[in-house]
This record gives sequence, C-alpha cells and structure tokens, in this order.
Amino acid sequence: MGMWVGKGRKARRCYGFDEIALVPGRITINPNDVDVKWKLRDLGFEIPFLAAAMDGTVDGRFAIEMGRLGGLAVLNLEGVQTRYQNPQKAFDMIINAEMKDSTRVIQEVYSKPVQEELIVERIKEIKAAGVKAAVSSIPMKAEKFGKIAQEAGADVFVIQSTVTTVKHYSTEYEVVDFCKLRKQIEIPLIIGNCVTYETTLELMETGADALLIGVGPGAACTTRGVLGIGVPQVTATADAAAARDFYFKKTGKYVSVITDGGMSVGGDICKAFASGADAVMVGSSFTRAEEAPGRGYHWGMAMPHAALPRGTKIQTRVTGSLKQILFGPAELDDGSQNLVGALKTSMGNCGARNIQEMQMTELIIAPAIKTEGKVLQQVQRVGMGK
Amino acid sequence: MGMWVGKGRKARRCYGFDEIALVPGRITINPNDVDVKWKLRDLGFEIPFLAAAMDGTVDGRFAIEMGRLGGLAVLNLEGVQTRYQNPQKAFDMIINAEMKDSTRVIQEVYSKPVQEELIVERIKEIKAAGVKAAVSSIPMKAEKFGKIAQEAGADVFVIQSTVTTVKHYSTEYEVVDFCKLRKQIEIPLIIGNCVTYETTLELMETGADALLIGVGPGAACTTRGVLGIGVPQVTATADAAAARDFYFKKTGKYVSVITDGGMSVGGDICKAFASGADAVMVGSSFTRAEEAPGRGYHWGMAMPHAALPRGTKIQTRVTGSLKQILFGPAELDDGSQNLVGALKTSMGNCGARNIQEMQMTELIIAPAIKTEGKVLQQVQRVGMGK
Amino acid sequence: MGMWVGKGRKARRCYGFDEIALVPGRITINPNDVDVKWKLRDLGFEIPFLAAAMDGTVDGRFAIEMGRLGGLAVLNLEGVQTRYQNPQKAFDMIINAEMKDSTRVIQEVYSKPVQEELIVERIKEIKAAGVKAAVSSIPMKAEKFGKIAQEAGADVFVIQSTVTTVKHYSTEYEVVDFCKLRKQIEIPLIIGNCVTYETTLELMETGADALLIGVGPGAACTTRGVLGIGVPQVTATADAAAARDFYFKKTGKYVSVITDGGMSVGGDICKAFASGADAVMVGSSFTRAEEAPGRGYHWGMAMPHAALPRGTKIQTRVTGSLKQILFGPAELDDGSQNLVGALKTSMGNCGARNIQEMQMTELIIAPAIKTEGKVLQQVQRVGMGK
Amino acid sequence: MGMWVGKGRKARRCYGFDEIALVPGRITINPNDVDVKWKLRDLGFEIPFLAAAMDGTVDGRFAIEMGRLGGLAVLNLEGVQTRYQNPQKAFDMIINAEMKDSTRVIQEVYSKPVQEELIVERIKEIKAAGVKAAVSSIPMKAEKFGKIAQEAGADVFVIQSTVTTVKHYSTEYEVVDFCKLRKQIEIPLIIGNCVTYETTLELMETGADALLIGVGPGAACTTRGVLGIGVPQVTATADAAAARDFYFKKTGKYVSVITDGGMSVGGDICKAFASGADAVMVGSSFTRAEEAPGRGYHWGMAMPHAALPRGTKIQTRVTGSLKQILFGPAELDDGSQNLVGALKTSMGNCGARNIQEMQMTELIIAPAIKTEGKVLQQVQRVGMGK
Repeated sequence: MGMWVGKGRKARRCYGFDEIALVPGRITINPNDVDVKWKLRDLGFEIPFLAAAMDGTVDGRFAIEMGRLGGLAVLNLEGVQTRYQNPQKAFDMIINAEMKDSTRVIQEVYSKPVQEELIVERIKEIKAAGVKAAVSSIPMKAEKFGKIAQEAGADVFVIQSTVTTVKHYSTEYEVVDFCKLRKQIEIPLIIGNCVTYETTLELMETGADALLIGVGPGAACTTRGVLGIGVPQVTATADAAAARDFYFKKTGKYVSVITDGGMSVGGDICKAFASGADAVMVGSSFTRAEEAPGRGYHWGMAMPHAALPRGTKIQTRVTGSLKQILFGPAELDDGSQNLVGALKTSMGNCGARNIQEMQMTELIIAPAIKTEGKVLQQVQRVGMGK
Repeated sequence: MGMWVGKGRKARRCYGFDEIALVPGRITINPNDVDVKWKLRDLGFEIPFLAAAMDGTVDGRFAIEMGRLGGLAVLNLEGVQTRYQNPQKAFDMIINAEMKDSTRVIQEVYSKPVQEELIVERIKEIKAAGVKAAVSSIPMKAEKFGKIAQEAGADVFVIQSTVTTVKHYSTEYEVVDFCKLRKQIEIPLIIGNCVTYETTLELMETGADALLIGVGPGAACTTRGVLGIGVPQVTATADAAAARDFYFKKTGKYVSVITDGGMSVGGDICKAFASGADAVMVGSSFTRAEEAPGRGYHWGMAMPHAALPRGTKIQTRVTGSLKQILFGPAELDDGSQNLVGALKTSMGNCGARNIQEMQMTELIIAPAIKTEGKVLQQVQRVGMGK
Repeated sequence: MGMWVGKGRKARRCYGFDEIALVPGRITINPNDVDVKWKLRDLGFEIPFLAAAMDGTVDGRFAIEMGRLGGLAVLNLEGVQTRYQNPQKAFDMIINAEMKDSTRVIQEVYSKPVQEELIVERIKEIKAAGVKAAVSSIPMKAEKFGKIAQEAGADVFVIQSTVTTVKHYSTEYEVVDFCKLRKQIEIPLIIGNCVTYETTLELMETGADALLIGVGPGAACTTRGVLGIGVPQVTATADAAAARDFYFKKTGKYVSVITDGGMSVGGDICKAFASGADAVMVGSSFTRAEEAPGRGYHWGMAMPHAALPRGTKIQTRVTGSLKQILFGPAELDDGSQNLVGALKTSMGNCGARNIQEMQMTELIIAPAIKTEGKVLQQVQRVGMGK
Repeated sequence: MGMWVGKGRKARRCYGFDEIALVPGRITINPNDVDVKWKLRDLGFEIPFLAAAMDGTVDGRFAIEMGRLGGLAVLNLEGVQTRYQNPQKAFDMIINAEMKDSTRVIQEVYSKPVQEELIVERIKEIKAAGVKAAVSSIPMKAEKFGKIAQEAGADVFVIQSTVTTVKHYSTEYEVVDFCKLRKQIEIPLIIGNCVTYETTLELMETGADALLIGVGPGAACTTRGVLGIGVPQVTATADAAAARDFYFKKTGKYVSVITDGGMSVGGDICKAFASGADAVMVGSSFTRAEEAPGRGYHWGMAMPHAALPRGTKIQTRVTGSLKQILFGPAELDDGSQNLVGALKTSMGNCGARNIQEMQMTELIIAPAIKTEGKVLQQVQRVGMGK
C-alpha cells in the first residue's frame, strides 16, 4: 500500500469522486422503497443532508427552510450573521466587489467583531420556527460560544477549522481540550475537519457525536493550492468510515461520518455514501437555492483570514427553491437538482435499501477523463456561452 | 484484482474506449474478405449494427432504411412516435427549445399518454416495407406492449431500462418476472441494460437472446453525473463476453452481447468488438443521418423523467445519408462515416476474418490524452469555429 | 506484464512520448563532440533524419535540399508529384479548399492516375543535383514501381502502408511476396509500417534494410480514431529495437529501426532515439520549411482513400528554411527549430557519444499533464491568438 | 521499482507537484510556533527562500530587499546587469518585443559582452546595503568570475547550468574541475542543476555546500519540450534528499538541497519541503514583486542561447511588494502571496515544528486533475478575461 515517489519515500494513492464510479447492484429496488433517514445521537433527520456553515449559504431563513425539509443547516457563528444586525449591506459589498478586489473587501467586511447578543438572536429565530438549530464555531471560541449557544437553545454544536486534531501545540494561546469541552456541551457535538484514520479515531475518543470529513476538496476552497494539503474525499471518507466501524465495535458508540465538501453534482453525493458516509455536508450546491443569502455567490470561510486568505469567491446561478434542489422536480439535467431523488434512485439501482447498505456498494476506479469527447464538449459549451 | 481506495476498501480499475487501442495483427486481411454478419437467434443480419431506441434517431422511415441496409433499428414504444399520430410538431417543440428550457419542454412533450393503436400502426408501417421490425419497452410495460407488438408482427422485442436486474424489489407495483415474460414473448428478446458478469449471467438464464451492455456511457446520458453510476464500456463488454462464453459452454446457447452507447467514432466501435461484442447499438452517430427524425438533435431517454430527468439534449450535425454513414464513401475524416468500412478495415489490419476472431484481438492500454498536442489542437478548432 | 481490463482479458500498458522523459547522464558531453551519423546498409548519412513521403512535405526541390543537408527525403510515388507534370494547380486546390471540403477535394485531386514517365523524371531531377534519391510505394505497386525507380537510378526504395505484415490474405488480388520482391530490388529497401516485436522480426527476415515503426501516431493521422488501431511510439520503438538487437545477434545483420510519426518537437525526437531508434522520419515539422511544397499545409497519405479517408488536413506555419529547422539558429523557443542541435544537446546532457549510446539513456515515466499550470497557459495563448 | 515501457525496457514512475498532496498531521501546531530558519554552511537565513538568478527577477535593488527580508537573491553574472551599466534600455527592448520576436530580441540584447568592472560594482552595491551578496556563473566562467566575485566581497557563489555533472567531456575546451574550483572559492558554494541520486552524491563529494535540484520544471523553461529531458520535482527532490542524508551519515557534512523551479503557488513550495528540500529557489513568483526589474516579465536563462534558445518569455502580473509576496497580508487567494505564511501554516497543519520535521510529512498521490470541475472552471475564467 504505497508507491515509490523517490528513493526511500513512499506515498499512498488516494482517490477522489471524479476517479470512481458505482456499480449497479445484482438486485435493484424501487427508489420509493429506499430509506435515507439519518440519526445524530438522539436527533432524527428525514434526509442525510447538512448545509455548510458558509455565509453565502446559510442564514436564519435558509436554516428554517432546511429544517422544514428534513435536513440540518449550520449557521456560522463567526460570519456575517453575528457581526451585523442587518447583514444586507455586507452581502451587497461582497457580491458587488470586482473579482480582483474580492479578497480585500471580504477581509474588510469580516473585520467587524462578533456580537454575542446576535448569536442568541439568530438561534432563537430558528427555534421559533420549530426546527432544529445548529451553529458552528472555531475551536478557540468553542468554549465561550458553545455555552451561549446551548443556553440560547441550540440543538447541535459544530466545532470546525480547516484541520482539527486532538493534540495541538501553541505557546501563544491556551490549547482547546476537546474532552473537557465535550463535558460542557451537552447537546450533540460535531467536530471537524479531519481526513485520516488516526485523527478520526482520536477525535471520536473525545466524545464527538459526528465528524466532518474533508480537507481541501470544496469548490470555494484553495487549501490544496495554498498549503499543498488535501486528501481526496473517497479515500478520506473510506478511512473515516473504517475508524467509525472500529470504534463502534470497540465501544458500542456509533459516531457519524459526515463527508464535507467537494460534491458538485448528485453523483458525487451518491459516491460519498458509497464511500462510507452517514451524511453529507453541502455548500456550493445549496447556494443555488433562492433561500440562500449569497444570491448565487459564495466564498470559502478561510477567505476572510487577514494574513493568509484561502478560498475564492465563486459565482453559481440561482436555479430554484431549496425544495426543488433537494426534492425536485428537476428542471435541469446536470445533477444539481432533486439531490434526494438522485440519491434514492442511485441507491435503488445499487440495490441498497438504506444508507448502511449503500456504504457497501461496489466501487470501481473509472476516471472521468474523456479527452476527445466530453472535455471538448464542455469547452464548446463555454464557447457558446452556456 | 483491485486497488485500495481506502482502509479496508478495494476497487477494481475499469477501462473505457479512450484508454485502450488495438494492436495490428501478425497477419493482415483484405477488408473485402472480412465477414461482419451477425445472428440474433434465428434472424440473420448483414451488419452487426443496431440503432438505439432514441426518439431523435429512430422512426418508421429510419427503421426501414436501416433494415434495407442490413442492420436493425429499434423503435421506442414509449416515445414520441406512439404518443403522437403526427409527431412533427412534438419534434419542432423540442428542437426549437432554448438549451435552458430543453428539459422542461421535453418533459411536457412526453406527458401525453402512449396510444396502443399507434404501436400497431408503427410496426405495420415497418413490416410493410419488407424489413424486420424491432420495438422496445421499459420492463413494467413489457408484458402489455410485448403482447401487442408480437401480434402486430414485430420480429424483435427489446426490454430496456437504465439498470435492469432479474431481482427487483418494490412495495408499490408488481415486479416483472422475466422468466414468465420470456414464455409469453416468442420472438427474439433483447434485455438491457446491464454491466456486470453476475447480472449478465442471471439475465441470460431468464432466456434472453441478447443483452444490451452499458450503463452511463452514452453521449446524451448523464447517469454517471446524476447517480454516480457507470461502468466503462471496455470492461463492461469484456465481462459480459466472459459470461456469454461461460453460459454457452454450460448450456450450448449463445446469447449475443450488444455493446450499447459511448461509441462516438468508428474506432470506438472497432474497440467494442475487440472487447468481446457481437453487435453494437449506436445512438448519437446515427442522428447525423438525413433519415433521423431529430434533424441533428437527440436526447437521452431518461430525460423526460418527470422528477429526475437524466440525459441532455445534444446537437450533432446532419452529415449525409444513413447509407453513407454506414458504408461511405466518407466525406469526413473524423471517423463518423463509413462505419462498416472502418470496422472491416480495422478487422483486416488486426487479422480478424470475422467478428469472433475480432473478439480476440490484442488490446493495449494507451491513454488518448495528448495534453500538449491534440487537446490544444481541439481547443484551437473550437476557437476557429470549426 | 499486463493489466486486467475485464474478466479473463489482459492488456499491456504502452507509452507515448508525452508520458516519458529522459534523465540527465552521470557524465555530460560537449554537444559538438557528439556523433549523430547514420547508416542505411552501405549508404552513410550525416544526420539520422528522413522526411516522410507526404505530398505537403516532399517534392524534388525539398528532396535536393534535404540531401544537401545530410538527410534523406522520401518522395511519394503515388502522390501529386507523379500524377501531375506541374502539380502547382493541384496544391492550390487543396490548400484553398475550405476545411469542410478538404476530404472531397483531396479525393478528387488524387483520382488522376499516376504517370510512369513522371516517376522517372522526378528521380532523375533529384539525382541530377548530386544527392541520394528515395521513393516510396504501397506494397501492391512495389514490384512495378520498384523496377522503374531502380532503373531510373533511385538509391533507396520504400514500401509503405498503414499496417504492413509479411502474411496477408486476399481473394481479390495477388498478395505481395516480400522475399521475392527483395531479390528484385537491389538498392537499400525500407519497409513499413509496423509496431510489434513479432511483425518487426518477420519483416526483418524478408531482407529489409530498415523498418518504419509507427501506426497511428502522426499529427495528420486519424488511424486511431477511425480504426481504433495504434501503439504509442515509445513502446513501439522499444519493441522494434529489441527485435533488431535479437536479429543482429542471430544473423549479424543490423536492420535500422526508423521511428515514423508522432514527433512534434525536438524533445519527442530525442525520446525516439532514447527509446531505441536508429533514425527518425518526420512529416509535420518539415512542412514548416520554406522548401516544403505544401506552404504550411499537409495531409495524411490515407486521406485521399476513396471510401474510407483517414487523416486530416493540418495547417502549420512556415517558419524558416529547412536548414534552419535542422541546424538553427532557432528563432523560436518551442522546439521546432534546430532539431539536430536539440538532439546533440540532449545527447550531450544524457552523456551519449553517439546514437547507439543514446539508445541506452534512462527513461522515466513522467506525464506531461500539468492541469493547473501549462494546459491553462496554453488555453490562454490560444485565447490571445498566439 | 520500474514499469515496462517496451520489451526489455523499464522506466521508473516519477512524480511532480501536481500529482501529490500533503496529509494533515496527527498533531497540529500554531504557525507562529513554527521555525523556518535555514543555514548555508555558516550563514544563517531567516527564511529558506532564494530568488533565482534570472534577469527578470533579480537586480541589485531586488537583492537588497530580499536580504533585508531574511532570504537570499542570486544575481546572474552573465545577464543584463553585468553587460549594461544602465540596463534600463535592454529591459525596455525585451519587454516591448512582440511575442514572435522575443527570442531574436533577447538573443541580440545578450550579445553584448560581460564587463568585469560591472561584476564588482553590482556586488559592492548589494554589500553596501548590509545584506549578503550571492552571484552566479556558468561552469566555464566559474574560475574567472568566482575570483572576481570573492575579491569584490560576495558571500555566496553559485555555479549553474541546465545540467551539471562532475564528469564532462569536451575536445574543444578545458573541462571544469569542481574539486580544484572548490579550493579556490572559499565562500559558500552552491552548484546546480542536477536531479539524480548519483550525480547529487558526486557533486557533494566535490565539496559543494548546497545543490540546486531541478532540470526542466520551471514555468519559463522549455528544456523538456526541446531536449526531452526532465525529472519531476517531487522525485528529484526526494532522491537528492536521500543522497544528502547518506552523505551526512558518511561524512558528517550536511549539504543543503535547494529545490529550484516549478513551484508556481504556495502549495508547491510546501510540497518541495515535504519532499525533502532544505530551501527553495523561486523565479516566476518573485517576478510579481514591484522590486523585480522585469516589471511582470521574465524569461529563461537558456533563452539567449544563440543556436538553440530554450525557455520562453512569460508575462506575470505585478501584484505587490516582495514583502507582501513573502509575508503578506495576501490580497489574492491564489497562493501567490504570503508564501512564508503559507509554509508556516502548512507546517503547522502537518505538525512540523521545523523544516527537518516538514521533510518527513506524509505524502499522498492525489492527481490535481478534476476534468469536469476545475479545468472547466479555469477555462471559463480565461473566457471571462480573468
């Protein structure tokens, strides 16, 4: 397991969504007989979809609609929503910024401090609609914000940074103790992001209820270009799933694996489950919803970083309601609408009755590259202004 | 046989047409001395080409011309031809639709119900010209339509869906029993689509006379993007051929393997036979014929799906008569004309006297990617408006 | 040696120029101390370059200049030069034809029959300038044309077709007996094209003095697209070189291996020698010479084929004299000028004193693909009209 | 270790930056607690960055700023700076030349002879600012220029050519004796370029203090296209690092490995260290600095070669000060600014406390190719004129 990349140096071959495909099953199932429910500790969800804590994707209105549709949207506690009482102007500035000024404008917008009372307000807003509220924070603010969020009635707390490990070293600030934190946060806790078997296992041991899997794969993420770091999602998800299964066998506790990022079409989502995911966290694709505050724009959450912005402002197209994106009917044939329908149809064709069975679907390695065919076709489409 | 894609997770490397090439033989043969005849149970065909049951490709007129030229065209019983007495207006609507409205317009056109008397009429129309009539249906309608078609005089019946398996599970509708169906349909029966050794074998055991091999490879098909499902055609065909050979050895019955989809040029067709095919089913390439009703347009048959349309409307160019596409003389140098001539020349160069020998031609893995050469050239052509 | 592409089906991985690179030597040599001489039986050449028998590349004037510069140009006996006393008008028709009409116009131009007296005239024209004359024919005409050419004073005879084998089967015409032919043609004889170890060895046994290696790689060649046939040049050359070395060991006769086609820049030529070539045959690159009759255009020699044209009309740019293309000084930095200088410099850097040592240079597999870098750059250049 | 590319011919698979990625560590570190210091024999540097001896990148002013920021810029002794007292006009000519005339104009500008008094002047200029002065020469001029440079007060001497080996053969000129040269040059000596374990080791044995690793990877370098020669940087660096570690074990002397060329974004630099580098030499990326004399243009140093120019004139964009490129704050999100910050963040995420630990980071093979995603996106950006 590993190929020589230099004298005395081996590297493992890892795989992404574009490189694999699913094999139809020996038995097929009517998509309507397929079950896609998902459970986070004691909370049940109709669909295994989370909306990523990105400012272009999730605000209160979006979170409420997502909850009504059976999923879970995560609100970013360090984003525009908690810095501005009325974030409309902030959005306008970002959306109207020229591509070349985007980074600078975004850095500026995010320089306003987070207001704690807005955290409370946003959570209450979502709860008032009768749906579950999930919010996210970086590790360093987790203790403080976790407390506020819990008291305000949040149902799920997410601790998220580009790369999260149990062991961290710093001479400048106090390092977060996840085990201690876990004891303070009683509501279901999701930690991320991580990508290796070892780190996944160590984070499970801190008591997390679910982990976010993915470093560097997102459409609005440039971690791999800027830092050189990144593990393709099929391998990252399969490794995390192996850790989950081992941990469950050892402890009896089932910690959900949530594949986060890099899924641009329905097929990618299907592949994430086939790679071992219990749920998926989606960013860019949800920005196409009418309910998304970014109105077709979104940007990576490492982009406002003052010294080393990572991420890029991406323009997608608003193509319909969130309901249409999740449940159809699809008006587009490109796999960006009716994501739940696509998942159910794919599961039916693979003969998987539920997510657990989908996790055992046969994968093949089948590169998407079709030099003389599809790439050219795509280039042509671009030329035709499609 | 399989590479690690994650901890405890193996995947097999599969191959498509673009990744392989044929090796010239040690002996070569005059193309005129090469035999390309094909047999479906007791029906003999001069050329091993079937036209796909796609509405942009096959109508009565096309089927008659295809029959006269020695091949077999399959008419879609759930398409425009059996929904409209005069389908001209339906075609106009689809062809004139803007790219962005295509899916919606196609969904609308296909919402009109199928008329049984039109099934009978279409078949009689083809038979009246003295050629063989082949029609296709989805599994759920197969019992009903099969009976009508057979009585109307059809020579071949095709049961086709994206993924077809012997075992299917549903609580909503009665599941098709292929063995029972086989007994009712006495004319040669083709079932599809499938891609694995196991499923191919199981479908052979139901009594099918030929199988359609291919899930997700076609130019107008987006199954892989939307559902993540798809097996590249070289591997799919070789696996099915292995099942065919095993089944023949065991039972003495030879079930034809028909590679269906993903062949855009003559070279791809040659590779399909070298991978083990007995015949090929072609869609997009035949849409370039003057006789094709789509006048240069065609669309995937999963595209009208109300909730989850899969497929895309493709525009090709009408380049000549079906006769010219099949037998030349070619006026184009891109491998889209004189497909039978290309097959015979390729067989001659590979030293294959007939299709059975062509199935044993040496394959090599030789990616088509020529980054610094051909891709660029193609991009340039696009730029020059070619 | 071989990877599974399907159940019971193996394929060997073959390599082309874009996928390999040369490793600098442990010793380096001053390029001026490097020897690139080449010998075809008893004929010595200063440089191991042949110009391909393509009508856009070689006419009498070009052949004379090539001979003066130390190489060998092959005149096509079935091309424009032997069909037209004054081929100027034929060239004008081809060059001025619209891209879409090219195939038809070329087919028309080549429908005029070959005139035997023009064969004699063209050869005498070249000989009169005091340089060696080489001419080529397809196998079927080889006996007849070989006799005429030899009597007219030709120094080298080339028998060439897309795929040439010792054993050929036909019920329509008499099959060429290469052994018999060899006895009739006393001047050095080059046969091609072939690509496998076995066929190379069998053709050597007929008495050929050199073989042309390459099926399907040329820039103006679409054999792979149309017929599916083609073996990448690194593997084809290495296999032929192994046959040559085995045959030399067994018989004491050294049969030259000439890599023919697919070399678009100096680096590709260097790689051909490192793969085992004794000489290279170049087409497209020489079309850039002021002396080439095609004035920047050239087309594959299978393109005039009446029923199944293969090849495409390519436009290159006339960039300088043949002398400049071969010996520089280069005014371009893209590897298309000073090909001999590039070869000598490469040999010097690889520590190869002569072609035989260059044939043992270390090869590495190092794909040229740089998705995020060079491809984009190239796309940009296209965009900028470069 | 090696794959068959032809009968009896093996080749090793080598890897470049685009094909690998780094895996986050099990422990992470606050980037501010990461140490990136580098030592060249007895000279300490705050950051492990060298600016390449390219005329578009380094002049006196740039070298001074680079020194002040903690790095080391190398001035080319055979470039424009030592040929012209006031090189402004030479730059104007090159920058204003049309793309098609670039090679010729550059050849002309470089035809003026080097003036020895300018060598002295340039070095004194840099030293006067209180920073270390590094200058470079080709091997043949090394003895002469090395003496002048040393006497003028240079701190580091660099001997550089496309491919440098200890053993060189020439009948035309006296071959450089690196061991003898080493005795004459007392200041720290850097030799390059090389790429293999064997040559690296042999060059270390001559007494070099550091080696430049890289043949053919740079953005402005066309060595691979013109000569076919080139080893991808991950493998080249890992091999050189293995030689360094072996040599250190054997002799106790630590010879630095400096990866030179092919790093276009911060991520590539991080990967170079993870592959085993002690420092990196950067060209194109520094041309984006306001201090670079090329004002956004740069060209390969083999480009002025009279007979065989190799390299190409590249236009980058001036995006900020050198300080901003090295230390940020980044205004761009593409990995081209705050290179030191990116390295520290990457090291922190990989759990590497210093360069030595970074050299042991886990590498994975994870091709950057995302056909259906990023390539298209990039093509779109080009189309949008970004």
